[in-house]
Amino acid sequence: MSQLKKIAGGVCAPEGFAAGATGCGIKTGKVLRDDIAIVWSESPCASAATFTTNKVKAAPVLVSAEHLKAGRNRAVVLNSGNANACTGAQGLKDARAMAAAAAKLLELEPKEVLICSTGRIGVSMPMDLVAKGIAALEPTPSGSKAAAAAIMTSDTFAKEFAVEVKTSKGNFRIGGIAKGAGMIDPNMATMLCVVSTDAALPQPVLRKELRRSVANSFNRITIDGDMSTNDTVILLANGLSGTTPALADFSEALDEVTRALARMIVSDGEGVSRFVEVEVLGAANDKEARTAAEAIANSTLVKCAWAGGDPNWGRILDAVGYCGVRMNEAKTDIFYDKLAAVKNGIASKTSPEKLRAITKKKAFKVSVDLHIGKGSYYVWTTDLTEEYVRLNLGE
Amino acid sequence: MSQLKKIAGGVCAPEGFAAGATGCGIKTGKVLRDDIAIVWSESPCASAATFTTNKVKAAPVLVSAEHLKAGRNRAVVLNSGNANACTGAQGLKDARAMAAAAAKLLELEPKEVLICSTGRIGVSMPMDLVAKGIAALEPTPSGSKAAAAAIMTSDTFAKEFAVEVKTSKGNFRIGGIAKGAGMIDPNMATMLCVVSTDAALPQPVLRKELRRSVANSFNRITIDGDMSTNDTVILLANGLSGTTPALADFSEALDEVTRALARMIVSDGEGVSRFVEVEVLGAANDKEARTAAEAIANSTLVKCAWAGGDPNWGRILDAVGYCGVRMNEAKTDIFYDKLAAVKNGIASKTSPEKLRAITKKKAFKVSVDLHIGKGSYYVWTTDLTEEYVRLNLGE
Repeated sequence: MSQLKKIAGGVCAPEGFAAGATGCGIKTGKVLRDDIAIVWSESPCASAATFTTNKVKAAPVLVSAEHLKAGRNRAVVLNSGNANACTGAQGLKDARAMAAAAAKLLELEPKEVLICSTGRIGVSMPMDLVAKGIAALEPTPSGSKAAAAAIMTSDTFAKEFAVEVKTSKGNFRIGGIAKGAGMIDPNMATMLCVVSTDAALPQPVLRKELRRSVANSFNRITIDGDMSTNDTVILLANGLSGTTPALADFSEALDEVTRALARMIVSDGEGVSRFVEVEVLGAANDKEARTAAEAIANSTLVKCAWAGGDPNWGRILDAVGYCGVRMNEAKTDIFYDKLAAVKNGIASKTSPEKLRAITKKKAFKVSVDLHIGKGSYYVWTTDLTEEYVRLNLGE
Repeated sequence: MSQLKKIAGGVCAPEGFAAGATGCGIKTGKVLRDDIAIVWSESPCASAATFTTNKVKAAPVLVSAEHLKAGRNRAVVLNSGNANACTGAQGLKDARAMAAAAAKLLELEPKEVLICSTGRIGVSMPMDLVAKGIAALEPTPSGSKAAAAAIMTSDTFAKEFAVEVKTSKGNFRIGGIAKGAGMIDPNMATMLCVVSTDAALPQPVLRKELRRSVANSFNRITIDGDMSTNDTVILLANGLSGTTPALADFSEALDEVTRALARMIVSDGEGVSRFVEVEVLGAANDKEARTAAEAIANSTLVKCAWAGGDPNWGRILDAVGYCGVRMNEAKTDIFYDKLAAVKNGIASKTSPEKLRAITKKKAFKVSVDLHIGKGSYYVWTTDLTEEYVRLNLGE
C-alpha cells in the first residue's frame, strides 16, 4: 500500500525542479505584473504533453508539438498577455524565438524547451520585450507560486498542487501549476498546466499516463463549452527520486494532482458562484453518458437556473432529450445530491424547498439515471452568471 | 408572375378562419391575463405539422401527433402558463380532455383539434379552470391578435403576420401567429406557431411544403441552443379562396410568413440586444456549413462579445476550429457585414473602429468563408446579455 500526502511547493516540489517569473509588459508595454515564467529541470527529463484538439492551434502549440517529438524536453517557457494565436508565419517564428531565448538562458537546445502562451489573440508578440523578459528569468526551487501567478489572466488565485508518495519501491513526488479560463481581454479561455515529477518512468509510460489522467481531470471540466486554441498540459519526469513506482501508485498520484488542479480551474471560472458535478448513469454506453453529461453541463438554461439556486430539473430533462442519446423519459430519474427530484420522468415527492436548499449551496452534484444500460460518465462544471457575461462583453 | 403583399389580420387573414382568447388563471389560479386561445376554420381543412425532435415530448405534442394522422384537423387550442410536459399519464389524459372540450365548443370530433401548450413544466394542468376557459372561447374573424397575445410568455409583443398573393391562377392568403422563447418561470423555451391559408392544396403537398419552409425559417433560429419539449408548427389549409396556386407561388408566400415570424421570435428573444445573421460559405458541404454556423451562433463567448459590441473574431475562428468541420485556418476569411475582419486566418487591415461600428448595431451579419468547398448555410441568432441570465435565474 502506498501513502499519499499533500505537500507544498507546487511544480518545484519534486527533486531537481526550479521555476521563476518576471514582468516584461507584454500586454500594455508597461511592467505592471509578472507575465513571463519558466519551469526547468536541472537534469534531463522524459516528457509528455497533450494539446488542444481545436483545428485552430496557436503557434506555441504547433512548435511545442514539434519539440515534443524528441521527448527529451526539460523546460517550459510560459507567458500571459498574448496567446500568439491566429498570428500566421510571424507567430511561428516568435514561438521558436521564445524557445531559443529560454534555451540560451538555461544552456539547453531549443528543442528541449516547450512553449505555452495565453492572452490576446490575433496580435503579434512584442518580441523585443519578451526576449528581455526571458533573459531576466532566474529559476529557483521556491519559484512555483510566482510562476503560477505570472500565467494568470482573469484567474483570481494562483493554482499549484503537489503530493509526496511513499511506496514499497521508494518515494517520489508530483507537483504542478495551472491556469484557468480567462477572457477579460478580447481573447479566449486557455487552460495551461505543467506537471513535474521526480519519479523515473520511460516516455511511453508517461505519454500513456498523461493521456489517461487528462481524460479523468482536465477533459472532465467545462465552464462554457468553448475550447481554446492554446490548451496544453505538459508532464516532465526527471527521475531524480531514484524511484520507479508501481504504475498504480503513479497513476493515483498523478490523478490526485491533475484532478486537484482541474477542480481549482472550475472553482475559479469567470463569475462562477457554484461548482457542480454532473453524473449520468444507466446510459446505453459510456460515450452516450458523456454526451448527455456534457449537454447538461453546457446548457445555457440549466446553468442560469443553477446561478439562481433553482432546482429546475425540467431544463435538465430537456437537455438529455435533445442531445441525441437513447433515453426513455418514463424511466429517467434525476437527483440533486442524493435527493430525488424526478422519478420515472415526473416530479418526485421531494419538496421543492429541500431541493432548493441543495441548489443554493456552493457545490453540489446532479445525477441522472437513464436506466437503459450500464454507461456512466461525469463532468465538473459551473453555473452561468450575469458576472460571467459582464466579464466577457469585451471592450 | 405573382404579386405578394403584406396584409393585416394574422392567422385570421385567410378566408374562413377565426380565432379568440380568454383568461382562465392557469398559472396562478387568478385571471390576470388571457392564457387560452383557439384558432378555427369554419370549413374542413387539410393539415400538416412539425414537432420538436426532443426525445422528451410534452403531452400536447404526443396527442397532436396522433390527431394529425387523420390529417383533417381544423382547430388548434393553445394555452400559456403550463407546458403540460413531464406530466406522465395524467398529462396525456389532460391534453385529450383539452381537445375534447374544444371539439365540443366547435361541434367537431376531438381528432380534428390539435393542442399547443407552453409554460411551467412538471406540473399538472388545472383542468377545471382550463375546461371553463375553453367553454368560454368565442372565435371571431378579428381574433388573431388576442390569440397571439394569449400564448405569450416572456415575449414582449404579440407575433402575427399575413400576406395576400395574386397569381394568374387566382388569389390566396396565408397568415400566422407565433410565440417565442419565454423562460421567466421555471420552465423552458417554447416556440409555437399556427399558420392558416385559404389556398386549396392537398395534404401531401402541405406536409412537404411545411417541412421545407420550417427548414428555411424556424429551424434557422437559435437563441440559446436549448430545444424545447413543446415546439410545434401547424399549417391549416381550408381552400376557401378557391385557388390552387402554382407550387412556387405558394412556397414563396409560405416562406414569407414563416420567415417573418421566425425573425420576430429572434428579435424578441429574452434579453436580446442584437439580431445576428451568421453565414458560413465555402464549407466542404452544406451540412458542415450548418455545423459551423450553429457552433458560432451557440458559442457563449461569441454571443457575450456581441452583447458588448466587440468584433471579437478570435472567438468566431475558435468556434469554427472546435466544431469538427474541415477547415484550414490559413484559408479562412471572416467578415462583419461586408468588411473583412480576417483574411487568410489573420487580422485584416480593416481598423478595429470600423468593425466595432458594425457590432454595435442592432442587427448585423457575420460571414465566414472557409474556402474549402461550396457548402453554405446561415442561421439567425442573438447576443447573450446579462439580462438573459437575469431572466433565467428561476425563482
